[in-house]
Amino acid sequence: MRINENYLNVKESYLFSEIARKVNDYAEKNPDKKIIRMGIGDVTLPLPPVVIDALHKAVDDMAAKETFHGYGPEQGYDFLREKIVAYYKENTIRIDINEVFISDGAKSDVGNITDLFDKDNVVLVPDPVYPVYVDTNIMNGRKIEYMQAKASNGFCPLPEPGVKADIIYLCSPNNPTGAVYTSEQLKAWVDYALKNDAIILFDAAYEAFIGDEKLPRSIYEIDGAKRCAIEFCSLSKTAGFTGTRCGYTIVPKDLKVEVTKLKKLLKVDSNVVELNKLWLRRQTTKFNGVSYIIQRGAEAVFTPEGRAQIKENIDYYKQNAKIIAETLDEVGIKYFGGENSPYIWLECPGSMRSWEFFDYLLESINVVGTPGAGFGANGEGYFRLTAFSDKDSTIEAMERFKKLFTPVPEPEIPEEPEADETAEPADEAPEAELVIEEPEASETPEAEE
Amino acid sequence: MRINENYLNVKESYLFSEIARKVNDYAEKNPDKKIIRMGIGDVTLPLPPVVIDALHKAVDDMAAKETFHGYGPEQGYDFLREKIVAYYKENTIRIDINEVFISDGAKSDVGNITDLFDKDNVVLVPDPVYPVYVDTNIMNGRKIEYMQAKASNGFCPLPEPGVKADIIYLCSPNNPTGAVYTSEQLKAWVDYALKNDAIILFDAAYEAFIGDEKLPRSIYEIDGAKRCAIEFCSLSKTAGFTGTRCGYTIVPKDLKVEVTKLKKLLKVDSNVVELNKLWLRRQTTKFNGVSYIIQRGAEAVFTPEGRAQIKENIDYYKQNAKIIAETLDEVGIKYFGGENSPYIWLECPGSMRSWEFFDYLLESINVVGTPGAGFGANGEGYFRLTAFSDKDSTIEAMERFKKLFTPVPEPEIPEEPEADETAEPADEAPEAELVIEEPEASETPEAEE
Repeated sequence: MRINENYLNVKESYLFSEIARKVNDYAEKNPDKKIIRMGIGDVTLPLPPVVIDALHKAVDDMAAKETFHGYGPEQGYDFLREKIVAYYKENTIRIDINEVFISDGAKSDVGNITDLFDKDNVVLVPDPVYPVYVDTNIMNGRKIEYMQAKASNGFCPLPEPGVKADIIYLCSPNNPTGAVYTSEQLKAWVDYALKNDAIILFDAAYEAFIGDEKLPRSIYEIDGAKRCAIEFCSLSKTAGFTGTRCGYTIVPKDLKVEVTKLKKLLKVDSNVVELNKLWLRRQTTKFNGVSYIIQRGAEAVFTPEGRAQIKENIDYYKQNAKIIAETLDEVGIKYFGGENSPYIWLECPGSMRSWEFFDYLLESINVVGTPGAGFGANGEGYFRLTAFSDKDSTIEAMERFKKLFTPVPEPEIPEEPEADETAEPADEAPEAELVIEEPEASETPEAEE
Repeated sequence: MRINENYLNVKESYLFSEIARKVNDYAEKNPDKKIIRMGIGDVTLPLPPVVIDALHKAVDDMAAKETFHGYGPEQGYDFLREKIVAYYKENTIRIDINEVFISDGAKSDVGNITDLFDKDNVVLVPDPVYPVYVDTNIMNGRKIEYMQAKASNGFCPLPEPGVKADIIYLCSPNNPTGAVYTSEQLKAWVDYALKNDAIILFDAAYEAFIGDEKLPRSIYEIDGAKRCAIEFCSLSKTAGFTGTRCGYTIVPKDLKVEVTKLKKLLKVDSNVVELNKLWLRRQTTKFNGVSYIIQRGAEAVFTPEGRAQIKENIDYYKQNAKIIAETLDEVGIKYFGGENSPYIWLECPGSMRSWEFFDYLLESINVVGTPGAGFGANGEGYFRLTAFSDKDSTIEAMERFKKLFTPVPEPEIPEEPEADETAEPADEAPEAELVIEEPEASETPEAEE
C-alpha cells in the first residue's frame, strides 16, 4: 500500500507547543506570578441558558422510544436549516433550505470541501493565514499562491493583475488580523471569480462580531456571489460552541462548474455540474450528520431568546476588545481589528520581532499572546491578542500594558536573543512560516477555528 | 476551477428511494393494511438510562463557567479513550491510548481514512458490500476489485491466488450478509496483508452482536494484525447511537508504511511512516473532535452499569434475530447471519429475484425488507431482514411469514414482472449494482452504518 505522500509536504507547527513550553518554563521558575492568557482563540463564557434548556430537552427525547431519534439526514434537520434560512433572510439574503448543510464545525467543512476539487487548481490564500486553508490543500497536492496581507492594504488584499487563481480563500472578519472586508472590496473578489471561473471559499466564522452595518456579514450580500462562492459559518464563537460542535455551510445551487468529461451525473444531463449536488454526495457518503441533541441546541441559538442571549455574550467579548483597543490607543501601539472582530492584531512596539515581543510580554508583565510570525511571513513583527478571556483578566492585562508602555515604550531588548526555532527570518518563503495546531495528544489543546 | 471529476463516476443509488416509493404507493392504495418495516438498519430502542444521565450531567457542565468545555483534543478526551483501552484489555488486546481516535461515527472515519492513501492503490471489497467502501474510493479515483462473497464460501471470501490488492475492506459481522469471519479466516487475511504490504480496513461496527466466544470481535485478536490493520468501531448499533453520533477508530503504532520519497515527517527521520501519525495529522487538520457532551454520553456506555444496559438492548435485538431465524428454519427458507449479527440474509424462496421477492412480501403480507441485489451483483436472489424493529412487530411479521410460506412456498409469480430500474440482471458488472443512500434531502433517511 502506498500512502498519499502529499502528507509528507505538510509542515509541522511548533507554534502552540512552543508557546506552551515557554509559558510552562516561566511559570515553573516564577510560581508566584499570575500569568494572563490572551493567546488562544477559545471562548470562556458558558453556553447560553436557552441552549442548555434545548439540549436537556433533546437528551430527554432520546430517552423514550416515542421521541427517540436514530439516523438523521446527513445535511441536517430541517428544524435547524429553516432557522438558518430565516437568519439569512433578516439580512435580505434568500437561501434555499437545500443550500444549507449542517456540520460539526467550520473546520471540518473547510477541510472536507477540498474533496470536490481537482488536484490541478491553483489555490490563493492570504499571508498571514488560518493554517487549515494551506495544510488541507497541501494534503491534496495542490499548488498554493499567497496574496500579501499587509498594513499597507489594511490586511485586506485585493485581486492583482497577473495572478491566476482557481480557488480563493477569504476570511472576514479575519483570523488572525481582525481585518474586515468592505462590500466594495468583496465585490472586487466576486467580479474576479466570475471572470476567471474561480471559486471563493468564504470563511464567515466571525460574522456575528460585525457591528458596523455597512460591513458585509455574508458574501452573498454581493451580487453574483451565489454563482462563485461557498460560505462557511460556525456557532463556535457566535454561541460558545467550540466544545459543542456545530456549524453550517452554504452551497448555492447557482454555483455551477463546467466539467471536461461529459457525463450523466446526479440526473444532470449536461456538462455543467452543481457543486451543491457534489457536496450533498460527499456528505451523504462520508458523513452521517450532526448529533440530534446538538442540532436541537443549535436551533435554540436562532430563537429570539437565543439571539438575545448570544448577543449578550458577543457584546461581552467585544467589550474586552474595546478595552484592549483603547489601551493600545492610549499607549500608542498601532493595531488592526478589535472593532468588528474578537482579534486584535498589533504592531510589536520598538520594532520588536513577534517572538521577541512574546518573551518580553511574558517576562515583563506575565501576559501571553500569539506571535504573528506563526501565521505566515507577513505576520512577522505582529502579535495577536484575543478578546475571549474574561473581563477581569482583560482589564488586569491592560493595566499591566499601560504601566509597561507608558510613556511610549523603549523596551530593553536582550543583546543576544535566544535562538528560536519558530522565529524565522521575515524574508523566507511564506511556506516556511506556516503553522498548524499542535498534533500531539493533549487534554488542553489550543485548537482554533 | 476544475472539480474532482472522479465524483462523476460514482453511481447514483435508487435502492432506498425505490423502496420508499414502492411502500408509499402501496400504502396509499391500501390504507387499511398495517405495513411492518424490517428493511432499514436503524435502531429503535432509546438510549440507555446511564447514557441519558451522563448526557444531562455534561449539558450542565456546559452551563457554568467553571465546568465549561471549549475546544477539546481532536482525537478525543482521555476519559473516553481510557475506557476504550480498558474495553480492549478485557478482550486481552493491548491498545495504547494514543492508538484510539474518537469520531462522530464509523461512516466518517471509513470515508475519511482514504485521504491517507495514494490514488494508485488497488482496493479489494467484497460483493455484496456496504456501499461507502466503494463510493469513497471511486471519489478518489482508485481502482476497485471485487472478492466474491457467496453461499459457497459462507459469504466470507478468503484471499485468492493471483489477486493483488493494496487496501482490503473486511466487515465482520457483515453488513448486509450477517456472516462472521472465524479467527482462522481472519488469520489468512492478516497473513496475506503482511506478505503483500497491504492494509486491512476492518469494520467492526457490529462486534457487540457476537455472542459466540470462539469468534473474533476484533481483528487484533489475530497475531500480526497490528502491523497491517485499522479497526473501525461504532456505538451506533452497540448503544443506540445512530442519531447521537460517536464511534472510534484504532490505528496501531506498529502500522508502518515505507514511503518512496525520503522525507522528514512528524519527527520521523526515516523512510518509514507510521499511519497513526498521518491519521493524527489528518484529524488535527480537518476535524475538531466530537462534542464534549456526546463524549461524556459515550463514556457512560463503558461503565459497568452502561455495559449491563447495552447488553440488555443488544439481547433484545438478538432475540428478534432469533425469532426471525427460527421462523425461517420452520418454513424452510435458507439464510445466513442472524446468530452473531443483527442481519438475516435469506435466499429468496421459489428462485425469486430480490426485487420480485420484495414486491411479493409487500403485497402478500405487508412486510418490507431490503433487496439483496441492492448491495451488489452477488446479492441478487437474496433479501436482508434486520432485527432492529420492535419485538411485537417482529413477531407479527414472522407470523405472517409462517402463514405465507407454510407449506414450502410456490409463490404466484406475475407473468410479466414490471420493469424495474433498480433490478439489474445478475450477470452485470458489480459496479452497476452498487447502491448508495438516497442523496435527496429527507427528514427520514434510511442511512445506515
